[in-house]
Amino acid sequence: MLKIRQLLVDVYGCEADLDDAEFLRSTLERASEAVGSTIVHAVAQRFSPVGVTVIMILAETHLSIHTWPEHGYAAVDIFICGEGRDPDVAWDVIREELRPASFDVRELTRTIGEKRT
Amino acid sequence: MLKIRQLLVDVYGCEADLDDAEFLRSTLERASEAVGSTIVHAVAQRFSPVGVTVIMILAETHLSIHTWPEHGYAAVDIFICGEGRDPDVAWDVIREELRPASFDVRELTRTIGEKRT
Repeated sequence: MLKIRQLLVDVYGCEADLDDAEFLRSTLERASEAVGSTIVHAVAQRFSPVGVTVIMILAETHLSIHTWPEHGYAAVDIFICGEGRDPDVAWDVIREELRPASFDVRELTRTIGEKRT
Repeated sequence: MLKIRQLLVDVYGCEADLDDAEFLRSTLERASEAVGSTIVHAVAQRFSPVGVTVIMILAETHLSIHTWPEHGYAAVDIFICGEGRDPDVAWDVIREELRPASFDVRELTRTIGEKRT
């Protein structure tokens, strides 16, 4: 039975430029590296007129950000498996870069196994 | 203030082949279409020795599945925004295809806006 902590973070009042896909991509890369994850695939998509999605596919799981620059808001999902990998480390990197006025972290535990417990 | 319902589903005892990347990709495509979402980018990745990740980047948000075929387990995240788009519709499609013995749906509301409420 493997348990994975997943963080879902609503980020408000960001000082960073949430419409800068390259900045967000490099932020998520740095977060993945900080936590010791292997990046398998990275996708960055800018929307019109504003808004960015970046998803890093990691070995087995993912890290994502969706931004609404017009609100200074970002939705961050940190779903990282692997022994000793701490999602808080990834969130620390992202928080430092986004420079939010406030945020709301929710944590879930995903139970990987034959049946639910 | 925009509120988005996000579903995080742990899926156990799947009868479907969780190591078939093409099947999982087409399942998520059908789920995205059923809910009326626009697919911007799709990534399917098979891992060694087993396991698949599929992520559909939708207009502004995403749909993802990570599988552990050795446990018959899949982690499904359904994060779909847009008026009138019901994530339960996507989950119905996925559930029908995976044919699980049991599952555990958790629902979160993400609040997009200037500040948290």
